[in-house]
Amino acid sequence: MRMYDIIEKKRDNKELTKEEITFFITEYVKGNIPDYQVSALLMAIFLNHMTNNELLHLTDAMAKSATILDLSDIKTPGKYIVDKHSTGGVGDKVTLIVLPIVASLGVEVFKMSGKGLGFTGGTADKLESIVGYDINISLEKAAKQVQDIGMCLISQNSEIAIADKKLYALRDLTATVESVDLIASSIMSKKIALGADKILLDVTVGSGAFMKNLDDARALANIMVNIGKLANKETIAILTSMDEPLGRCVGNALEIKEVISFLLSDETTLASDSIKDLKEVVFEIAAYMMKMAGVGEDINENKVKILEAITSKRAYNKFIELVKAQSGYISNVYMDWIGMNLDMPVLKDKVKYLKEIHAQSTGYIVSIDSKKIGEALVCLGGGRNKKEDLIDYSVGFEFNKKVGDKVYEGETILKVMYNDKEKFDIAFNYIEDAIYIDNIEPELAKSLKSKPHILDIIY
Amino acid sequence: MRMYDIIEKKRDNKELTKEEITFFITEYVKGNIPDYQVSALLMAIFLNHMTNNELLHLTDAMAKSATILDLSDIKTPGKYIVDKHSTGGVGDKVTLIVLPIVASLGVEVFKMSGKGLGFTGGTADKLESIVGYDINISLEKAAKQVQDIGMCLISQNSEIAIADKKLYALRDLTATVESVDLIASSIMSKKIALGADKILLDVTVGSGAFMKNLDDARALANIMVNIGKLANKETIAILTSMDEPLGRCVGNALEIKEVISFLLSDETTLASDSIKDLKEVVFEIAAYMMKMAGVGEDINENKVKILEAITSKRAYNKFIELVKAQSGYISNVYMDWIGMNLDMPVLKDKVKYLKEIHAQSTGYIVSIDSKKIGEALVCLGGGRNKKEDLIDYSVGFEFNKKVGDKVYEGETILKVMYNDKEKFDIAFNYIEDAIYIDNIEPELAKSLKSKPHILDIIY
Repeated sequence: MRMYDIIEKKRDNKELTKEEITFFITEYVKGNIPDYQVSALLMAIFLNHMTNNELLHLTDAMAKSATILDLSDIKTPGKYIVDKHSTGGVGDKVTLIVLPIVASLGVEVFKMSGKGLGFTGGTADKLESIVGYDINISLEKAAKQVQDIGMCLISQNSEIAIADKKLYALRDLTATVESVDLIASSIMSKKIALGADKILLDVTVGSGAFMKNLDDARALANIMVNIGKLANKETIAILTSMDEPLGRCVGNALEIKEVISFLLSDETTLASDSIKDLKEVVFEIAAYMMKMAGVGEDINENKVKILEAITSKRAYNKFIELVKAQSGYISNVYMDWIGMNLDMPVLKDKVKYLKEIHAQSTGYIVSIDSKKIGEALVCLGGGRNKKEDLIDYSVGFEFNKKVGDKVYEGETILKVMYNDKEKFDIAFNYIEDAIYIDNIEPELAKSLKSKPHILDIIY
Repeated sequence: MRMYDIIEKKRDNKELTKEEITFFITEYVKGNIPDYQVSALLMAIFLNHMTNNELLHLTDAMAKSATILDLSDIKTPGKYIVDKHSTGGVGDKVTLIVLPIVASLGVEVFKMSGKGLGFTGGTADKLESIVGYDINISLEKAAKQVQDIGMCLISQNSEIAIADKKLYALRDLTATVESVDLIASSIMSKKIALGADKILLDVTVGSGAFMKNLDDARALANIMVNIGKLANKETIAILTSMDEPLGRCVGNALEIKEVISFLLSDETTLASDSIKDLKEVVFEIAAYMMKMAGVGEDINENKVKILEAITSKRAYNKFIELVKAQSGYISNVYMDWIGMNLDMPVLKDKVKYLKEIHAQSTGYIVSIDSKKIGEALVCLGGGRNKKEDLIDYSVGFEFNKKVGDKVYEGETILKVMYNDKEKFDIAFNYIEDAIYIDNIEPELAKSLKSKPHILDIIY
């Protein structure tokens, strides 16, 4: 078998066989196929697409390129390990809220997360803004932790789907990242390699996501759900809006603070407008995770249980248990808005400067471009341009106003936390560009504010 | 400017600017762009094609990647240097016949030729089957030779269009050779770099050519003629048939023998069926070269002059002058079929074995697959699989019968000259496969025999 013939076949839009795809992946991982042949094939795949069979074989070959985890010893009989994955976004702290909630409700959570790159953040970075949190614990230790406290949240093991890592690095340099086929097989190969029984996908849609519109997101979701089916892993994709940043905070430590606030919410807060978008996404995903894990058949009943897990602070306590189990620092703090002492994670959140960004005119906020906000965070040092970049966990944004909100000239829209004035100046251009205020009708503003965040569910 | 953005733009089927294409070529030649990015771009070009403007800029950038020759000192005022190029074929010795003819008629010939690779032969190899012939003379010496005897035939200088050489090597490994856009710009970049005023292209069509059918060949011809126009170089493409091997001989020294025979033909031989295909192509191309060079406006009058140049032996003598000027060995031989002594090039034509291949059945020869004959020659050692392969100049085939000829069972169709019995056995399979005999109607056989070899002329 020759790589040349495989490239030629895909170039001519013919279907590759399982043997050809497996040859390509295994030999590439071994270093027997040069990058320049692989990048030609990737571009041919980008432009000619893959059939369902090809996608399954590619995903399968990538998953098998290193270790496939066996989680069967960890889980309780009758339950399923459900892997939750987001295609990425700005201000996306859903994983960090959902997992303690469902773990407190009996779902066994074995979760690996990656670092952020470019304008989308990574859950691993957010966790590392907790002083001491050890994301790199061994698989054995993680497995024991799941048996002890019902969850772990660790970094993606370098032994998982090595082919995907190698391919992703090449795609990143050859403008082949945005291929739905390659995105789908990349995500699914890692999920399959991680040994989960079922997969719940949060497919984000909008300026701050890979997929800019609903059609593209549906296409991606369909491909992944299909791969899951063919691989015998029940897969559900929930399409969520990522036009404006999710929630109020963007930035690693700031998002952990928002996670803490969310998990400490009472019923009044949970019913309020201020966390509407985040709540909608969290409740939907958590409810489906419970259903898939086998701890609650009915989505609406699950949502009632989720509300109760939050207001009873059981979800919050599970989060603190997780942080403690993975060596995160905790201090006992008197919370005046709750009126009691609480264990709180210690955060890398000290910044030198805070600047309020004010509305230039009176009107309604029509849009907040989440991609630009994500890029502004990278400018401040809170995200990575290159994999090896170090990040500043403390910087970020806290929004007082969101899309659909009325603002008066001079009113504060958001606060910027930063450590470097030059970096702020660069970031400021992105922030200014990201926010669009116009004098629209109040009715239109209201409809913008009440736009649903769950756009579709595909299974 | 970033290569990434250039790949992305072409991937999305947007038109690249002159600056982008120039950046890509110049930085690639300098070694500042890795192969894996270039191969992704090449695949995107293959699948999305290029606009006329892009093709011009690519050709231009490749031509300028090293030296562009200045031939203005060589040529006589009022005349034009015309470069003749064939897209390659099997048994294609047209260059070696046409150039001495037109040089003997006053056309100034400055010609560089390449070596063969794969199933198509190269003019440089054919010349090197003449003992002593120095294909690698300096550009200065070649220029002086053109002023002295009106022609030179030298190897392609390694300083010419370096980008094309680098790109071709990569295309060859990434299944992007067959792109008409890349073929066209590759050919035209070399022609433009060679400094010719005008370009005559012999675009071969058929099993033994790059372009397998007339539509593809027309597309390629149109692109090249268009690039020529945009680059201010008059360009004419003559489409010629390459379904069966051209002429009677295939193999380096054997083809030189056929060149000699052709140039020594009398009127009777030139009017005979036996060299009909070769004569048709030679006369058409030579007549157009004369017209383009400014030594004869009328194509039909040119053909009369060409006939006279051959029968008077002026063309043959020009060929001998060329061989002598470039240090080829000459011996004076008594030619009994002419009845006189003649200067003849000394050839590397000694072979150990000769085998006649006989017809397996009685009927007409319906087809001789020239690609398979070209591959059989490679098997015998007469062609290259890899650039660095050494070749055996002496081996090859001489056809007694051609398409449309009647054959009787056991009659000789061709003779095989070879040096290695094992190689012969491998080649034999290709030869057997190449020849198809059937019991067709005599009328159909006649029409096969009289099929035109000039298929179209595009300018």
